[in-house]
Amino acid sequence: MASTNCRVVNGAEIAKPLLEEVRAGIKELNHAPRLHGFLANGDPAARMYADWTAKTCAANGVQFTLREVDAEDLEEELRQANRSDEVDGMIVYYPVFSSQRDRTLQWTVSMFKDVEGLTPQLISNMYQNIRFLDPDNTMKSILPCTPLAVIKILEHLHIYNHFLDEGKRLFGKRITIINRSEVVGRPLAALLANDGAEVYSVDVTGVQQFSRGSGLKKQKHEVADKEGWTLKDCLPISEVVISGVPGDKFRVPTELIRDGAVCINFSSQKNFADDVKEKASIYVPAIGKVTIVILMRNLIRLINNMPHAERQQIF
Amino acid sequence: MASTNCRVVNGAEIAKPLLEEVRAGIKELNHAPRLHGFLANGDPAARMYADWTAKTCAANGVQFTLREVDAEDLEEELRQANRSDEVDGMIVYYPVFSSQRDRTLQWTVSMFKDVEGLTPQLISNMYQNIRFLDPDNTMKSILPCTPLAVIKILEHLHIYNHFLDEGKRLFGKRITIINRSEVVGRPLAALLANDGAEVYSVDVTGVQQFSRGSGLKKQKHEVADKEGWTLKDCLPISEVVISGVPGDKFRVPTELIRDGAVCINFSSQKNFADDVKEKASIYVPAIGKVTIVILMRNLIRLINNMPHAERQQIF
Repeated sequence: MASTNCRVVNGAEIAKPLLEEVRAGIKELNHAPRLHGFLANGDPAARMYADWTAKTCAANGVQFTLREVDAEDLEEELRQANRSDEVDGMIVYYPVFSSQRDRTLQWTVSMFKDVEGLTPQLISNMYQNIRFLDPDNTMKSILPCTPLAVIKILEHLHIYNHFLDEGKRLFGKRITIINRSEVVGRPLAALLANDGAEVYSVDVTGVQQFSRGSGLKKQKHEVADKEGWTLKDCLPISEVVISGVPGDKFRVPTELIRDGAVCINFSSQKNFADDVKEKASIYVPAIGKVTIVILMRNLIRLINNMPHAERQQIF
Repeated sequence: MASTNCRVVNGAEIAKPLLEEVRAGIKELNHAPRLHGFLANGDPAARMYADWTAKTCAANGVQFTLREVDAEDLEEELRQANRSDEVDGMIVYYPVFSSQRDRTLQWTVSMFKDVEGLTPQLISNMYQNIRFLDPDNTMKSILPCTPLAVIKILEHLHIYNHFLDEGKRLFGKRITIINRSEVVGRPLAALLANDGAEVYSVDVTGVQQFSRGSGLKKQKHEVADKEGWTLKDCLPISEVVISGVPGDKFRVPTELIRDGAVCINFSSQKNFADDVKEKASIYVPAIGKVTIVILMRNLIRLINNMPHAERQQIF
């Protein structure tokens, strides 16, 4: 195969400096962070992810406990873990019921133990561009792992322009995100738009634009439907393309990608064809190793927030 | 006036770190660098520039001598200066004859004393993307001052992506340059395209595209005419707009500039209207202070090249 000018960057390379930061953070704690994973489905993919979490935690001084429970008992187990001094953070392997009932489970996890950042107040803070949990700005809000992993990747790749002020560092960038799920695609679109990007959020129902208006006139993002738009309209004008479509059928059409674009795949399958390297300046084929470091990073943040929470009797 | 999200960056801010580098370079030399300026026209703008050069040189330990000579005597004066051990670098204030004869003057200046980088071999190196004067890579080629100043500005603003390898750091960037003069616009277009950008070079005759082809397939830039293209086609797709149209009549149409673009003016007049700040993420209104530092930087480079030139008996 002919050599290309595309730089292929693997997750481990990007995870490395973040992992060093996490290890330094763990050293400063009084005790090894204790993460509890709740597995209540027979999904082999979920078990694989749990095993991987266990391995990474063990390698970095995080005490991980996998708890296999019956789906009907899960809500009560989560409540007990919320109250337990032995649990610093919790992760639930979804889907459990594959229905709206999963949302009730997300709401059950205490926001002070939610490493995934899926509880309603955390989600609401994120969409509102509120970075702290308290008025004194002592407790940092928790961002969902995969969207935050993508942000850290874009920072690593210098797509965030640090010459500009925080909150404006993506000003002038157009980003297509193919996936508008509540756990990744939609929060990611909001976060990138809050940082100044013009985001085209694409799913089977169509295209939505997340932006802060011309000249970043608005303080937080707004969403508008792009009637009649498809990938044909978004991709040729986007400097960054982020795709996370489940299954092995979907491929981002390489011919629509603009020359020199940055392409990031967060699907467990390959959303980009091999010839993406003929077009892209940078291609990140998988991000799982970054996401798991962010999970540990969130866990440390929860522990550091806790004394403040107790002092303020929020908890 | 309403506040905007545009960061206005003045030349002095960008020149500062470059100036520190130049001062450190001067300290390491055996003697104060000696720059001779040749003024052979009655142009008040040229005299102002000469006075400004004198002032900046004096402030930074460069010995500047302004030599006012008759236009007809200039060629012989330049020849003498080429041979003189008392002259490290030369600058000629153009235009002298305002005709093709000025080109003969440019060719007269020795390439080993040409701070402006306008002698044929230096120009040829630049277009060919050749960075050194000798096969052993000991003598760095000299780039023309204003184009190099623009490159240093784009590096300062993080438009060059240092995550990518040298020579590819503008891959994915589209840049419009309004000016295709032989001393600034055309060399600048070539340099930026050699670094991976897709450049739209605009003048009254039309638009040319300088690029290394899809996926940077070519090792150096190629030029193609863009039949029928105007600013209406270039500006809305360009992340960077660089303008240097002389006189006070021309304005870049703000409504065509894309949201979040980086705008740089190298004309002595204002090529951008005030409302550019409503659109741009970064606006650099003037670059003269950077250009003059580059002039001194080139002078140091010439002095450092000289022992190599003598050793190799090129001179």
